[in-house]
Amino acid sequence: MLGNMLDNLRKKAPTIHSITNYVTVNDCANILLACGAAPIMADDPEEVAEITALCAGLNLNIGTLNARTIPAMQLAGRQAMALGRPIVLDPVGAGASRLRTQTAQELLSALRISVLRGNISEIKSLALGAGSTKGVEADRLDAVTAENLPASLDFIQSFARQMGAVVAVTGAIDIVADGTRAFCIFNGHPMLGKITGAGCMLSAMTAAYVAANPEKPLEAVAAAVCAMGLCGELAQARLDSREGSGSFRTYLLDAVYHLQAADLEKGARYELR
Amino acid sequence: MLGNMLDNLRKKAPTIHSITNYVTVNDCANILLACGAAPIMADDPEEVAEITALCAGLNLNIGTLNARTIPAMQLAGRQAMALGRPIVLDPVGAGASRLRTQTAQELLSALRISVLRGNISEIKSLALGAGSTKGVEADRLDAVTAENLPASLDFIQSFARQMGAVVAVTGAIDIVADGTRAFCIFNGHPMLGKITGAGCMLSAMTAAYVAANPEKPLEAVAAAVCAMGLCGELAQARLDSREGSGSFRTYLLDAVYHLQAADLEKGARYELR
Amino acid sequence: MLGNMLDNLRKKAPTIHSITNYVTVNDCANILLACGAAPIMADDPEEVAEITALCAGLNLNIGTLNARTIPAMQLAGRQAMALGRPIVLDPVGAGASRLRTQTAQELLSALRISVLRGNISEIKSLALGAGSTKGVEADRLDAVTAENLPASLDFIQSFARQMGAVVAVTGAIDIVADGTRAFCIFNGHPMLGKITGAGCMLSAMTAAYVAANPEKPLEAVAAAVCAMGLCGELAQARLDSREGSGSFRTYLLDAVYHLQAADLEKGARYELR
Repeated sequence: MLGNMLDNLRKKAPTIHSITNYVTVNDCANILLACGAAPIMADDPEEVAEITALCAGLNLNIGTLNARTIPAMQLAGRQAMALGRPIVLDPVGAGASRLRTQTAQELLSALRISVLRGNISEIKSLALGAGSTKGVEADRLDAVTAENLPASLDFIQSFARQMGAVVAVTGAIDIVADGTRAFCIFNGHPMLGKITGAGCMLSAMTAAYVAANPEKPLEAVAAAVCAMGLCGELAQARLDSREGSGSFRTYLLDAVYHLQAADLEKGARYELR
Repeated sequence: MLGNMLDNLRKKAPTIHSITNYVTVNDCANILLACGAAPIMADDPEEVAEITALCAGLNLNIGTLNARTIPAMQLAGRQAMALGRPIVLDPVGAGASRLRTQTAQELLSALRISVLRGNISEIKSLALGAGSTKGVEADRLDAVTAENLPASLDFIQSFARQMGAVVAVTGAIDIVADGTRAFCIFNGHPMLGKITGAGCMLSAMTAAYVAANPEKPLEAVAAAVCAMGLCGELAQARLDSREGSGSFRTYLLDAVYHLQAADLEKGARYELR
Repeated sequence: MLGNMLDNLRKKAPTIHSITNYVTVNDCANILLACGAAPIMADDPEEVAEITALCAGLNLNIGTLNARTIPAMQLAGRQAMALGRPIVLDPVGAGASRLRTQTAQELLSALRISVLRGNISEIKSLALGAGSTKGVEADRLDAVTAENLPASLDFIQSFARQMGAVVAVTGAIDIVADGTRAFCIFNGHPMLGKITGAGCMLSAMTAAYVAANPEKPLEAVAAAVCAMGLCGELAQARLDSREGSGSFRTYLLDAVYHLQAADLEKGARYELR
């Protein structure tokens, strides 16, 4: 099932418009190319609507947002809605500053967001208004664990239902929910937290999977999350004793580039609840 | 002949001022260092003229342009003209938005551009006003092929003559023309399209080659284009079965770093027409 | 002694707020993660004070500064001062433009800078007002050498005393001085100059070392400088004949990731004067 999502992505090679932070924008462009999509970045209000119109999906990421890029996100988002293109929102650091929390909330209320992908602290700060985010890392107290999995699932499914979106909360255990069904995903490796941009890259790649599989957004997001986690595992397995986060980053991109539908089917570890 | 261009670049180690997009700016800086030049990036209108004055060449790239960087490009460009320094223009995504097309056209008309380097869709949108650009990738219908090579050559040479510039159109076959002569270049590898920034890096490197060889701009551009294509081939040849676009990106930089004049002479594949 | 600094960094895992240039921002984030810290980047005046308040240290880097980021640096800096958090200033390109020299001077006079880290040309342009900076590379005439080491030491110590800061001047020989004592550091490798961002990465990492060792800023900066130089040596030692600046960049990050206190103790080469 998830393998088909990747096959469709490779076949359709969707172009994805990303308005994203300048920290990991290069990584986002490279992972889009590696997974089979094509990237375009543009963030000036003067051109974003035209650029979005050329694309099959839109990826909005609020890291290093600013006074110029916030209206650009709104304009691009409205264009995507008008054309029926999926929008992924990555609320990087929501809860860490009023500007980020408010911007994420405004985007959520103004736009029809298809997928909201963040860590548990970011999602909680949007769902509950209680900002406990420290920087851009998930707060340890918030983490989804085997123990609190049922409660976390309830919370995320209920938020997904309320939003009318697929909500993907990534961490040691990832949850991808649409209000009715939820994937609990066990792929991944802690090394993904030792490089910058693993979350941003996943959001960009998610936009590509969803754009290529518009009729199955939940499965598309789950496939993207499994793919990223699995590629993290594969990259880690290649590391020798001298190799660390630098080599891991390279191998992660290599793994995404070579991942085939059959690998994803075989390597994805999840439960559908 | 082309080897001398690289020797001069290594000897003179020109500093290149780039006003470029934030997606691939790090790649541009690294490739400039790898080829023997030195990078400086600055894009605020308050300082660009001073920075350009310190440099041997200027590289203008309109990817992720915005309301602040457009006037900066004009100011830097006028300074470069006043000082007789070469200007390379990379019209990334011209044809994809009015802002990009118009900005590229305004730079072309206000400045004495030494080299215009883009894909065939971008160049056509500037030469013909007919924007068929999809994102930042060349439209397949526009591609230079063995079949349409004579017609493509005519078109590019005529545009180069009209512009009074060297025009470099890169793709599966690259054409570098100055209105009188043209290099058809057969170096390169499709893997260059699987990483972001191959075009941006080539434009930055082209500025370095031209700055180091001001009396021979056509040969300098041809040398840069052959060097990038050849390094792509060398990088690809190093890939083992697990290595993909991540490793390719690293090996490309390695190849540019190690490329010697003799390698370039031997590996360059072109016809001069 | 220096090993303890790294142990504390790994134990405390400080989050560092960087307002930095978009050329090397990804490298800065990755090296912070590799050394054991956590990065957050934010540069809009609307949110920087809140972000700084979440962090253990602030890293200000004026490469690609602009009209929006300059006030953001001031606001973040004032917040850091109010909360007693260390501030590292990297005056990239001071001397190369009035805007950069003036911005660095204004930050130095408005804020209590804990550490000023730059190349000798940048530091001289701030100490003497005599801008001889060419681009962002140190002028060869200014370089600290074995011959001029005593005079350079005098100059740097006197400037450190005047600033009430640790001043770190990096080059072939690095000097880290606080007005009373000075480390002359002999680690490093010329390959560090063949990639972009070695200086920016060092400044970011310095903020992490100082944030984790607030009572010993001089030793903390010296440890960061030795660590970067030593990791450059280790990265270089891994290169085979085909590998160049691309592989070096990866191996540098690997080395920072794996560096242990005992390695730093053993590999650091310095004289305390």
